[in-house]
Amino acid sequence: MLNYKAPQRDVAFVMDELLGFFEHYERLRFADATPDMVKAILQEGGKFAENILAPLNAVGDTEGCSWNDGVVTTPKGFKEAYQQYVEGGWPAMSQPLEYDGQGLPYSLSSILSEWFSGANHAWAMYPGLSQGCIETILAHGSDSQKQRFLPHLIAGRWTGTMCLTEPHCGSDLGLLKTKAEPLPDGAYAITGTKIFISAGDHDLSDNIVHVVLARLPDAPAGTKGISLFIVPKFNVSDGGEITTPNSLSCGSLEHKMGIKGSATCVMNFDGARGYLIGEPNRGLNCMFTFMNAARVGVGLEGLAATEAAFQGAISYARDRLQMRSLKGPVNKDKPADPIIVHPDVRRMLLTQKAIREGGRALAMYCTQQIDLTLYSEDADVKAAAEAKLALLTPIVKAFLTETAQECASYGMQVYGGHGFIKEWGMEQLARDTRICTMYEGTTGIQAIDLLARKIIGSQGELLRQFVNEARAYCEGQNEARRFSAWTDALLQHLDEWLQLAQGVAEKAKTNPDEIGAASVEFLMYSGYVCLAYFWLRIAVTAKEKLDSQIGDNDFYQAKLHTAEFYFERLLPRTRSLATSVSAGADSLMTMPEASFYLG
Amino acid sequence: MLNYKAPQRDVAFVMDELLGFFEHYERLRFADATPDMVKAILQEGGKFAENILAPLNAVGDTEGCSWNDGVVTTPKGFKEAYQQYVEGGWPAMSQPLEYDGQGLPYSLSSILSEWFSGANHAWAMYPGLSQGCIETILAHGSDSQKQRFLPHLIAGRWTGTMCLTEPHCGSDLGLLKTKAEPLPDGAYAITGTKIFISAGDHDLSDNIVHVVLARLPDAPAGTKGISLFIVPKFNVSDGGEITTPNSLSCGSLEHKMGIKGSATCVMNFDGARGYLIGEPNRGLNCMFTFMNAARVGVGLEGLAATEAAFQGAISYARDRLQMRSLKGPVNKDKPADPIIVHPDVRRMLLTQKAIREGGRALAMYCTQQIDLTLYSEDADVKAAAEAKLALLTPIVKAFLTETAQECASYGMQVYGGHGFIKEWGMEQLARDTRICTMYEGTTGIQAIDLLARKIIGSQGELLRQFVNEARAYCEGQNEARRFSAWTDALLQHLDEWLQLAQGVAEKAKTNPDEIGAASVEFLMYSGYVCLAYFWLRIAVTAKEKLDSQIGDNDFYQAKLHTAEFYFERLLPRTRSLATSVSAGADSLMTMPEASFYLG
Repeated sequence: MLNYKAPQRDVAFVMDELLGFFEHYERLRFADATPDMVKAILQEGGKFAENILAPLNAVGDTEGCSWNDGVVTTPKGFKEAYQQYVEGGWPAMSQPLEYDGQGLPYSLSSILSEWFSGANHAWAMYPGLSQGCIETILAHGSDSQKQRFLPHLIAGRWTGTMCLTEPHCGSDLGLLKTKAEPLPDGAYAITGTKIFISAGDHDLSDNIVHVVLARLPDAPAGTKGISLFIVPKFNVSDGGEITTPNSLSCGSLEHKMGIKGSATCVMNFDGARGYLIGEPNRGLNCMFTFMNAARVGVGLEGLAATEAAFQGAISYARDRLQMRSLKGPVNKDKPADPIIVHPDVRRMLLTQKAIREGGRALAMYCTQQIDLTLYSEDADVKAAAEAKLALLTPIVKAFLTETAQECASYGMQVYGGHGFIKEWGMEQLARDTRICTMYEGTTGIQAIDLLARKIIGSQGELLRQFVNEARAYCEGQNEARRFSAWTDALLQHLDEWLQLAQGVAEKAKTNPDEIGAASVEFLMYSGYVCLAYFWLRIAVTAKEKLDSQIGDNDFYQAKLHTAEFYFERLLPRTRSLATSVSAGADSLMTMPEASFYLG
Repeated sequence: MLNYKAPQRDVAFVMDELLGFFEHYERLRFADATPDMVKAILQEGGKFAENILAPLNAVGDTEGCSWNDGVVTTPKGFKEAYQQYVEGGWPAMSQPLEYDGQGLPYSLSSILSEWFSGANHAWAMYPGLSQGCIETILAHGSDSQKQRFLPHLIAGRWTGTMCLTEPHCGSDLGLLKTKAEPLPDGAYAITGTKIFISAGDHDLSDNIVHVVLARLPDAPAGTKGISLFIVPKFNVSDGGEITTPNSLSCGSLEHKMGIKGSATCVMNFDGARGYLIGEPNRGLNCMFTFMNAARVGVGLEGLAATEAAFQGAISYARDRLQMRSLKGPVNKDKPADPIIVHPDVRRMLLTQKAIREGGRALAMYCTQQIDLTLYSEDADVKAAAEAKLALLTPIVKAFLTETAQECASYGMQVYGGHGFIKEWGMEQLARDTRICTMYEGTTGIQAIDLLARKIIGSQGELLRQFVNEARAYCEGQNEARRFSAWTDALLQHLDEWLQLAQGVAEKAKTNPDEIGAASVEFLMYSGYVCLAYFWLRIAVTAKEKLDSQIGDNDFYQAKLHTAEFYFERLLPRTRSLATSVSAGADSLMTMPEASFYLG
């Protein structure tokens, strides 16, 4: 069974040594987020992931959730773990003090989100969805809504959901049909069926607060006629006390490939009492706040799976004796060598390691930007952070979840046939993380968001700003020159990145399908360039540390080795991607629909 | 639920129009394998796959096999389907007439193997293993062994297994420990534990014939001390009748990610009576016959999964309405367009289609070569076929199963979140086919076989022969000149293929790790070049048919569209692979083992 360890050292490196989180926290006046306090929190959070959540991961998969006449029961131990989570004060960590939150930075709780997901993806869905609900109410709710719902949600006594999808509409929310009819007292009667509602019903909390997209009677068609409602499982008095059951129920649970401990519910709203959040017909705009944070969150889930798969693979690769090194026996006393001597096993492990560490740098860079968008008092800083996030969010979401598929698959592959067997935990990891390229917008949706909305939509400005940051880094660092081959490779890629985007934008003027034809490969290309930027920064930082002789040399040396692997073996994946991005739409679009399958 | 259809038209194209199977059958004097007879067999086989096997696919996954005190029960319906398979005479199809086989070509029964696996991978494992057992006894058994065992196996009354793996040895069979001690009557007492034994126990047949690798008491260590034994579940009289139970049993079943209807057994041999096959200590050599055919068979399983995933994806992509084409509404009467209008959905579908059809051409080319190795009376023809097979077997096995992972994953991805839900069948497909890159030798093992044993081991001769065939095709065909860009691309790749192999071979002289460092990417490179060769041939053939105005224009036109997609969007994947192949071993090998994970 997989024995998850919170990656304390690597996170400390990214926080403190690479991205300067403590100076950043000081600038944002997080008085409590001192190095000692942060270290203590991460120690405790790591223990919670390792000792409470990880042991429930396999049982959650085996048992799954069960449904009985509308009541959902989570797997054995999930409720107790949730209780400990609440008692530890974890749900309140990065929430505002005025609603009994602890007022710590978003980027700090995001680290724990990664770890909790790495230890137990299915369990971590419950608090994850609550965060989405809390953020939506915080950003768009009225004061009285905040007073009624937030203290319970932030304390974790209640949990939340986001109810978007319907049977006939997933990516295309403009098609949604759920109705909201005004009631005499200002509330609304919500009627409709929502599917794929994570944490839609369960036994972890006293109440469940659904955030529901629905249409008012006079709403315009399409995405401009969608409003947002709070619909609690149990009605709530003005004072915030639970009263009667609301008219909604979980109709059934989906049977899924993975994250079986997470209740994925069909939710039936049957004239349920709901409360409008924000302006009528502006629901989709309100959702964007949530969606962007949620997308970074899914990227963190991908990273978490890569981390766990790497941990599983490395432990097996060092234990399993099979064949000799082609160079001759390494382990002469034993009947065979550990399989880590074989170059192809190392290729798989180093791919995981490079994605894990480069990906973590990218993801934590994004959560640092989220801190700035939330807490900076400097409008320019805030705007710059928003611009970076706008560009990087679809990349973090799609690139870290697509690479997680590869890394989780390598987790199995290193085990050979044993990887297919449940007891090792590697196949569960692959099944669990498979959802990540699909939910919160598929990779295809992220790719269109990146290329059409963000890059072409800003006339290239968002991309240029980030490219300029990376160029400035290359040119500004003395240290970078020590890695001149890597710096040159990055600079060439930055130029090419702009050219590729420009090329598609040009062609798209006459044929809009050119965007979709290039978009996924463009997104993957973008991911590899972003990781090249962070791997250069990691290498420069590691070299500085080695030069300063502070110790921990093996750690820093391993960063340099992994950077070398990244630039030699992973970055060149851009060669094929760039060719595809430039290939144009014709070879995709000319075949008639009816000719796709002719037997 | 997935509604599998046997790809009759595409198989007919490859058999008759592309690879000239009927002339080939005539040359090999298969008097019964006439076009009419073959068509009738494929019609019936297709129906068996569609109507009998496909409906049992989901139930096999849901129920799985069960173990009760050493007795294994297969899922509901598996036994009845097996009975129909036996009654239909399917197991005997390509087996020799002298043991009551039907004497039809290997390549013909391979088509059905693909279809049966596509309809129900787990079920198809049972007859698949029997074929391996039959082939081993046919090739290496004594006459009396053949008389005792083959008629039952070939009739399907009995089934067979291959018992190789032990807990501590999978790829490295030299480590195996199972003992074979001579008994006074010339038989052997077999003692040991074998794991991962597909079809090791079940309720489909009256007896199970295990082919077991074990060591004689005086055997040399390593792979040169392994012998091969027939060990039946029930002892068998000289006349071939079942007598007493043998001393062996299934200790437990593995719980696996997929192919849950296939019983993966731990087999305990406790002084079981066994009979030596072939020479003492030459067991591994005997196994190679089986292994090569089995590896092509696993390649066909990969192809089968790609086929099924494509069928599932195309049907959803045409039905599911979501968003509008970026060019404007296609489906004006409906609230949205079918998702097949979106270029990225088409990219996924065309990838599946290009792998499905190019892969089928490659796989059937290989089974055609197997026919020649088995039945040609011309020593040169036989030797040439053996040479091609030696080169192509690891490619077919690894490339068609690795691409199956991508294609099965696209099967889910086209469905968005629905792809994760069991009822659509796409997630089962992805789970079932995941084993294919691991069993019968992982992709890493195939890659070493290709590059070290086959190519470098033959001083490049095997590769040159195949490259020369492809070059001759390019240069010899007038028709090929109509596709001069594709022909040029193929010729350039053929040159580069030789150069890449030569480059690794040179470096390997001083550092053997260079082979393992390049091998998997070299194998994938090889697969893309092979498919380019077959896609050029497909295009040329399709163009000839269009020019000859025989009708079915949409079918041939779709071949040309798909070839265009292949050359524009898939073949360029070689750009990154070639870079990796040339990158050398250093970035993989310099990091100390202890530095891989430092927190």
